Amino acid sequence: MTEHLELYKKELLERVVPFWMQHSKDDEMGGYFSCLNQYGEVYDQDKFLWLQGRQVWLFSMLADKVEPRQEWIDMAVHGAEFLQKYGRDAEGNWYFSLNREGKPLVQPYNIFSDCFAAMGFGALYKVKPKEEYAEIARNTFNNILARRVNTKGKYNKMYPGTRKLKNFALPMILCNLSLELEHILGKKIVDDLIDEVLHEILNVFYDPDLGFILENVYEDGSFCDSFEGRLLNPGHAIEAMWFIMDLGVRRNDPKLVEKATEISLKTLKHGWDQKHGGIFYFLDVLGNPPQQLEWDQKLWWVHLETLVCLAKAYQLTGNEEAKVWFEKVHEYTWKHFRDEEYPEWFGYLNRQGEVLLPLKGGKWKGCFHIPRGLFQVWDTLSKMNSN
Amino acid sequence: MTEHLELYKKELLERVVPFWMQHSKDDEMGGYFSCLNQYGEVYDQDKFLWLQGRQVWLFSMLADKVEPRQEWIDMAVHGAEFLQKYGRDAEGNWYFSLNREGKPLVQPYNIFSDCFAAMGFGALYKVKPKEEYAEIARNTFNNILARRVNTKGKYNKMYPGTRKLKNFALPMILCNLSLELEHILGKKIVDDLIDEVLHEILNVFYDPDLGFILENVYEDGSFCDSFEGRLLNPGHAIEAMWFIMDLGVRRNDPKLVEKATEISLKTLKHGWDQKHGGIFYFLDVLGNPPQQLEWDQKLWWVHLETLVCLAKAYQLTGNEEAKVWFEKVHEYTWKHFRDEEYPEWFGYLNRQGEVLLPLKGGKWKGCFHIPRGLFQVWDTLSKMNSN
Repeated sequence: MTEHLELYKKELLERVVPFWMQHSKDDEMGGYFSCLNQYGEVYDQDKFLWLQGRQVWLFSMLADKVEPRQEWIDMAVHGAEFLQKYGRDAEGNWYFSLNREGKPLVQPYNIFSDCFAAMGFGALYKVKPKEEYAEIARNTFNNILARRVNTKGKYNKMYPGTRKLKNFALPMILCNLSLELEHILGKKIVDDLIDEVLHEILNVFYDPDLGFILENVYEDGSFCDSFEGRLLNPGHAIEAMWFIMDLGVRRNDPKLVEKATEISLKTLKHGWDQKHGGIFYFLDVLGNPPQQLEWDQKLWWVHLETLVCLAKAYQLTGNEEAKVWFEKVHEYTWKHFRDEEYPEWFGYLNRQGEVLLPLKGGKWKGCFHIPRGLFQVWDTLSKMNSN
Repeated sequence: MTEHLELYKKELLERVVPFWMQHSKDDEMGGYFSCLNQYGEVYDQDKFLWLQGRQVWLFSMLADKVEPRQEWIDMAVHGAEFLQKYGRDAEGNWYFSLNREGKPLVQPYNIFSDCFAAMGFGALYKVKPKEEYAEIARNTFNNILARRVNTKGKYNKMYPGTRKLKNFALPMILCNLSLELEHILGKKIVDDLIDEVLHEILNVFYDPDLGFILENVYEDGSFCDSFEGRLLNPGHAIEAMWFIMDLGVRRNDPKLVEKATEISLKTLKHGWDQKHGGIFYFLDVLGNPPQQLEWDQKLWWVHLETLVCLAKAYQLTGNEEAKVWFEKVHEYTWKHFRDEEYPEWFGYLNRQGEVLLPLKGGKWKGCFHIPRGLFQVWDTLSKMNSN
């Protein structure tokens, strides 16, 4: 497996990061363009907050973990300044999207805008310790906790009381976010939150009878036979499992790492498309037709997160199955998502593995999963090399 | 073309209508099940208001236009009673969905619930003239007009003022709905509304330079270079064109029918998949990657509405191209959507024309487009026969 180390490193540093450096910076109005076609040309100028915050995070992370390259720090600051100026409403909630100049387009109905903004400013503070960056990260984090019970606020369309479901996405992100912000929040807050989040993921969203992580469950963790309750998102569950492996390392808890390995392998085998290869986007846990029309598509982030998870699983447990699956997913992913013709990778394939949308970035794909995944695999393989 | 008359009639009366009669009625709790698998088995029990209202309409329409069969009227009343009892909030707005027993699940954020409820009660009043049905239809219609400017109310996530767009869906539905409710609203209201809606569709949403109907435009009708502004929905535009042909007949305006024929043929040719056949679900008018991941899928309603449009176009104008395209779309549609094994048709195919979801009904597909389309084509071919 470690023979791939150079491949991941080179792809990250020579093809993917330069693509975003070259094409995504909006020198005139600030922030980043994320809607870039196969050749990096801008085809839409709107600024989506998830992707703005994530790109600030990515460049800060590179400067922190790879080397403190000034151009990376400058790139992160470039996005952060735009976000600082235009990103929030009067209550400090982060909008969902802005137009090119920074005028709000879509209201702060989506708390993941806040999560990724906090992640971005938190990471930037590590490589450029301006107090205001820490403050934005801290305030945003506290605001996320305050909005936890009803993250969508008045935009929540669920009728109260009829079917009380909890969604998996927020605990999962909080688990990762709290670790990202430990230098700002302090160890105590992070430890307490981790206890809570681990409980939520493993005792509430994980269904021991089915053996899967469910996206939505009743408040007591029981199964809800509805479109929401039957929903499996294999990539999402697998991504959560590598967050949990990181927590296992932090807590020196090999059993937790074993458990996360077991769940991720089971999820991967269930989510793998036996006919065409690749991992399905959505499944119905009872085998009914899922609501999502895109259920059979193969998405970049699902495959990158799976590679990270399998690399970590093998590095930490030596599980041979994790190694075999890493090679299998590696082969599929590099063959189908990587663009041979021009840097960066495609994001959306049809079930057959053909390019569905010839874009490198869009409303949901930005400078995040591909470079983070390449970095994480490279980093994990380095640890194996030095074992 | 008229050789197909019996085929459409038989399919409607012997396979499709009996499917819904047999499988969709919830005898215990009222209303209709819409989530039915290939063999008509219920796989989800939630009740989606769009589909409840549409099914009331469909059975009332059959009783009105085909024959006053008591079982059809009873079936319509069965749904109407459930809707009457549980469908509305205190202000008379129609919820988006209810659970099986009728408790609200999703708030009235979606005005098409109201549109289809009004359509259902309006049609039912024709075959069972209870004054309360007319009153529900009338009140709902007035409420729709009152909510027109901001149909989503507090659930509207657009930030006011930054990018003021109008959406095509409501004028299009209003055009059809006002005709459906003429016996309740009276001719004057309908005529005035038709003038307004025709203006909206042909002068605001139709872009003469591009030659297409756009789904979203600036308030003055100008093009907005954004994901929303670039969106084409060929099936939606083609469906609107047969509504306009009906208006052309009503107004004795052959030019209007010609215009609608021209736009629909241009849209169809642009939306046709040269590689695999069938009509794309979504396109970007500038050729960029659309936002919708399901853009290349082939949907039942798109194809049924196109058959209706082409049949009407040929019947009314004798346009030979409409005839040739009718045969082409007919062949594709019957071959790919119709289930040879069990009654009713599939709804969702992948780009290649294979079944993507093996369902006969779901959250969005109910007892509506297939039977309405079969009826409309049958009816149009009958008119040609008697010409």
